Amino acid sequence: MTMMTTDLYPSRVADQAGITPRQDPVLHATEAQLRAGPLSADELAFFDKNGYLFWPGRFTPAEVERFRRELDGMQSAASRDDSEPQMVREPGGTAVRSIFAVHEGQPVFAAMARDPRLCGVARQILGGDVYIHQSRVNFKPGFIGKEFYWHSDFETWHVEDGMPHMRAISFSLLLDDNLPYNGPLMVMPGSHHHYISCVGRTPADHYKQSLRRQEYGVPDPESLTRMYEQCGIAMPTGPAGSVLMFECNILHGSNSNITPLSRRNVFMVYNSLENTLGAPFADVPPRPEHIACRRPAAL
Amino acid sequence: MTMMTTDLYPSRVADQAGITPRQDPVLHATEAQLRAGPLSADELAFFDKNGYLFWPGRFTPAEVERFRRELDGMQSAASRDDSEPQMVREPGGTAVRSIFAVHEGQPVFAAMARDPRLCGVARQILGGDVYIHQSRVNFKPGFIGKEFYWHSDFETWHVEDGMPHMRAISFSLLLDDNLPYNGPLMVMPGSHHHYISCVGRTPADHYKQSLRRQEYGVPDPESLTRMYEQCGIAMPTGPAGSVLMFECNILHGSNSNITPLSRRNVFMVYNSLENTLGAPFADVPPRPEHIACRRPAAL
Repeated sequence: MTMMTTDLYPSRVADQAGITPRQDPVLHATEAQLRAGPLSADELAFFDKNGYLFWPGRFTPAEVERFRRELDGMQSAASRDDSEPQMVREPGGTAVRSIFAVHEGQPVFAAMARDPRLCGVARQILGGDVYIHQSRVNFKPGFIGKEFYWHSDFETWHVEDGMPHMRAISFSLLLDDNLPYNGPLMVMPGSHHHYISCVGRTPADHYKQSLRRQEYGVPDPESLTRMYEQCGIAMPTGPAGSVLMFECNILHGSNSNITPLSRRNVFMVYNSLENTLGAPFADVPPRPEHIACRRPAAL
Repeated sequence: MTMMTTDLYPSRVADQAGITPRQDPVLHATEAQLRAGPLSADELAFFDKNGYLFWPGRFTPAEVERFRRELDGMQSAASRDDSEPQMVREPGGTAVRSIFAVHEGQPVFAAMARDPRLCGVARQILGGDVYIHQSRVNFKPGFIGKEFYWHSDFETWHVEDGMPHMRAISFSLLLDDNLPYNGPLMVMPGSHHHYISCVGRTPADHYKQSLRRQEYGVPDPESLTRMYEQCGIAMPTGPAGSVLMFECNILHGSNSNITPLSRRNVFMVYNSLENTLGAPFADVPPRPEHIACRRPAAL
């Protein structure tokens, strides 16, 4: 695991950005695994082509209520205690932006990680055993929630965490109604077929800042414009309990939220057990365990 | 004009925010003036109740193209010359955020100010002669366009410019498609019936900063939440050439814009000639002419 792996996706190594084709499949499972469900052939084809799927109301209001209660407790504990490394605050403020590794301390979120509506789908797409690479809550509080700029998760996980292949997917479970105006996630459908290498080197400890506001691993405006012209933008919205699944390399981001409506989402990131982390491809020390799991255990 | 007028709408004078009823009508014209058009009785009733109206495609693509060409010239001139006071840049950057007084230097925008689709409607609602209190272009450039936080224009025009009554309306003419995801204007329908007084005193020269990012004259979160619960949010979107008209006291704002799609709007603000500016109600010198006209001339 500590041996140097070939870098299929170089980034932050040149002065010029570039767009290269994806080297990995999107659907990693065998035909038989794919046919076994839970997703239908149509859903799989949509995901293969577009890199995301959205299910309105996938979790019940009662389930959402249970998640929210857990979060309320965590948030008020977080506001009392500044020492938790799992907690990230808004840029220029003290409001909680994100809490990481929610599936570890909280039984409610540990159960969510094992829920077949997420975990079963991840196994079907990634082909076999999976583990949680990262989990987190993004709060995007009302009035002051700031943007998450366009990025590919995989670019960061590859460069800073040493994830070798594109064989991971994320689920965002909406804990508040996501409306067009409270900063819902946007994706560029089909952009997961392209790898955008970014400009600039990665400073050590970059992650402490980047989780608040990213400066490296940011696609350049020209590449984003090209991708937009080719892919457009989709902005799935729906009630609390809806689920957005998206491929690890899809370009995504969200605008700010000045409305009074907070927009809390829980993210669960599943990685294949055949795609565990090696040494970072950038010359930086590995990020902490609560951001990038290096002790994988199959779910 | 320099005599002290009764302050019907005190703000920035107390430690507590408050919500008080509007003291002025929304439709200021006589029955006969209102019946004369151009707006229908239904449109007038909608505006009276909700404080805004939206007309998709009100200006033709050819007209939009003419406005855009003019803007492109102004923007590139602006990027060469930093000394123009009419120009405001994005917070923390050099991108052009707004250009003021566009109806003065540019014949194309002078003609827009006199266009019956704007000016005629303003006369019908405000009852008689009107003049341009303020005109501007907001650029909200792609990738980096920042929020405009919730505010009532009237609160600022009253406190900082000495506008005595709520007898002004704004038109936003969209020069780019306004989509749900490129930071379109949001309004709280019906909020124009309520006056939110804000906390804090106004520093002199506040406007130089406030046009980039407002810090005074900002409604408090509790008042905004109450208004949202009562009014909700409308976010009209439509193609370039569409027109959004909104009452001077309606709560409005917009989220940021990380998409590659710039979102340029031209604003024309009409005030009644019977509502010209006096001394500011705050203890500050009057703002410059290009922000608040003190030499009114009927259109």
